[in-house]
Amino acid sequence: MRTRPLKVALLGCGVVGSEVARIMTTHAADLAARIGAPVELAGVAVRRPSRVREGIDPGLVTTDATALVKRGDIDVVVEVIGGIEPARTLITTAFEHGASVVSANKALLAQDGAALHAAAEEYDADLYYEAAVAGAIPLIRPLRESLAGDKVNRVLGIVNGTTNFILDKMDSTGAGYQEALDEATALGYAEADPTADVEGFDAAAKAAILAGIAFHTRVRLDDVYREGMTEVTAADFASAREMGCTIKLLAICERAADGASVTARVHPAMIPLSHPLASVRGAYNAVFVESDASGQLMFYGPGAGGAPTASAVLGDLVAVCRNRLNGGTGPGESAYAALPVSGMGEVVTRFHISLDVADKPGVLAQVATVFAEHGVSIDTVRQQGKDGEASLVVVTHRASDAALNGTVEALRKLDTVRGVASIMRVEGE
Amino acid sequence: MRTRPLKVALLGCGVVGSEVARIMTTHAADLAARIGAPVELAGVAVRRPSRVREGIDPGLVTTDATALVKRGDIDVVVEVIGGIEPARTLITTAFEHGASVVSANKALLAQDGAALHAAAEEYDADLYYEAAVAGAIPLIRPLRESLAGDKVNRVLGIVNGTTNFILDKMDSTGAGYQEALDEATALGYAEADPTADVEGFDAAAKAAILAGIAFHTRVRLDDVYREGMTEVTAADFASAREMGCTIKLLAICERAADGASVTARVHPAMIPLSHPLASVRGAYNAVFVESDASGQLMFYGPGAGGAPTASAVLGDLVAVCRNRLNGGTGPGESAYAALPVSGMGEVVTRFHISLDVADKPGVLAQVATVFAEHGVSIDTVRQQGKDGEASLVVVTHRASDAALNGTVEALRKLDTVRGVASIMRVEGE
Repeated sequence: MRTRPLKVALLGCGVVGSEVARIMTTHAADLAARIGAPVELAGVAVRRPSRVREGIDPGLVTTDATALVKRGDIDVVVEVIGGIEPARTLITTAFEHGASVVSANKALLAQDGAALHAAAEEYDADLYYEAAVAGAIPLIRPLRESLAGDKVNRVLGIVNGTTNFILDKMDSTGAGYQEALDEATALGYAEADPTADVEGFDAAAKAAILAGIAFHTRVRLDDVYREGMTEVTAADFASAREMGCTIKLLAICERAADGASVTARVHPAMIPLSHPLASVRGAYNAVFVESDASGQLMFYGPGAGGAPTASAVLGDLVAVCRNRLNGGTGPGESAYAALPVSGMGEVVTRFHISLDVADKPGVLAQVATVFAEHGVSIDTVRQQGKDGEASLVVVTHRASDAALNGTVEALRKLDTVRGVASIMRVEGE
Repeated sequence: MRTRPLKVALLGCGVVGSEVARIMTTHAADLAARIGAPVELAGVAVRRPSRVREGIDPGLVTTDATALVKRGDIDVVVEVIGGIEPARTLITTAFEHGASVVSANKALLAQDGAALHAAAEEYDADLYYEAAVAGAIPLIRPLRESLAGDKVNRVLGIVNGTTNFILDKMDSTGAGYQEALDEATALGYAEADPTADVEGFDAAAKAAILAGIAFHTRVRLDDVYREGMTEVTAADFASAREMGCTIKLLAICERAADGASVTARVHPAMIPLSHPLASVRGAYNAVFVESDASGQLMFYGPGAGGAPTASAVLGDLVAVCRNRLNGGTGPGESAYAALPVSGMGEVVTRFHISLDVADKPGVLAQVATVFAEHGVSIDTVRQQGKDGEASLVVVTHRASDAALNGTVEALRKLDTVRGVASIMRVEGE
């Protein structure tokens, strides 16, 4: 074994960073044996140096992250700051100064992955980011390496623990969205400002990263259709249950049937209770991957948290250190397929539509005619009347988003339709 | 991209081999893009050259596998023959002649993994074998790479599809073992001689491989405790259901509580219906991995079959080809921890014991005394009488296998105990 240690600079020492530092210390001998050389924490860049950091030599702590990545003797920079800047500049600077990078930064990877990969390649460095998607769950590496000889057609998963906790709570207790969110906040599952989670931004960033790797095509955050889950109601859950379904916020990356384009989207959807994703509880994550040869694979585990995310970071750190000792790099960006990323209009799925209608004869015929005129075939209709008002629940066969939108627009113009209470996609069948 | 192709020799062209050849042809452009050079099927060694092999150039087919691996221009040998010989000699010869090896051979890896890894290292070659365990499910790579910075404490899984099909059938239809086996055979899930599957040899080989990688310790097939599932009865399933459990054939690799030793075992066990492994149906496989930092991860998918296994082989093929182009090798054997592998006596778990006893007063007291004398604490007892005979079902708290064996031996000596109908471990709680 080499005795000269590999030097690691840690950018950020919050929930994840402190776990990375802790494990680097407590598991030092194991890491050295697995890498073939010791790894040494050479510096820790933080914003608030005064905070006591248990187990970290105060002499390593600095507020000057730029100087740390510019030192020139750093082998690997571990970036767990999050956000776009200063993370992006620091990572680029790290490459320029000879370091490889391990990052957990989904937002940055989803927005600027291509540029960062190009920088890594220019400087013959590694850029690894298993921790950016679904915490501890090995997903990037299986997609990028284990399935490198297969053709992935679909990635379908729960990649945000906060929203899964909220939806699971609504499902199991009948709580409304706000009540479930309040509980998630109280328990520390949701942040004070939950926007990134509940509006699907976090899941959309992960969908962009997963789609890019799965389809060997650049997919940016802007390419991902995104719908949050703040409008999911207890009534939606009741409707879902009547269909033998539950509701999950799903990230779905699909290759079109003709193979010529791909789509990526995040939205709440009904899935059958018999689907393995339906039983993913609390803040857990799970991702289904469907490929030509392998068939359906599922990966399940804790999608967030300091220790699980640190586990993913350290797995990457070991890989990057090994590559460095071997004098090479691991697989870089693979975007050769360069498939067009289609918009939501091209997506074909089933829909569950709940309408408030007048309770009089002929309404169902009117509504059915509108669906037929737009080429959307109806699977089932359920009608419930009360006090001159009625609700009509329509479940369609597979239809494009464009056709469904046209249908709904026309429905809204009918005198007998008082309102469209909810529209939800049905997936996983 | 390099234009000179990497040359691949395929040993075996059965269910898996023919799929590997097919995908190498149909996905040639994708494989080339992902590797950075084209791959070319340079030869296919078979036993029966006369059989028609669709899509394979007859000029590539040979019966002389040894000459093929000795050619000297082969970059990667893909071994999908199975069994110990001639596979072992062919793999060693391949290393000696400059090739890396991708194998799906669990029996060989479990028996001679250390020697083969040593040969690979000696000749600076790769030995990859994702397909040897759980078909298409990425498991070797996640354990070896993704979790390289973590400490794995437990691997618990269903790694044999044939036995899972049989047990699932018994559970869902109430069928006996023989009836379920007959159906599995008729449907092609079980081989004409099902011994390797139903007696747990196949699962034990996989357990040895998984334990070795998970604990960075050499674990041979002989180190794995093995109990088949031919004696599981419909009555056992009825008992399991009363406990809210089902029965699965599990492979379990564990680090002892003190961390100083490891165990590996394969046996039928009751697991709670709420455990994710309980809902693994048909011939699917699923593996739980518990680690210090990552917590519980689960990997699920098709555990066998031509295409899924080929997917795993091709993922390895891409990785090995990339390594070759980079002039390096991937991670080799990691056995530095060299922990002692303990026998079954050290394993601590719960037990479900079903006794046939005389239906008279004092029997329960006698039986309970025997458990107490051997330090095995009883969780629940259920007594059922009929016609002077009674059955007593005892579920214990956690106890060592050694203590349980002592208890059962003493129970058999009691006049009032007519027989021990079944003993089954309870896992996953």
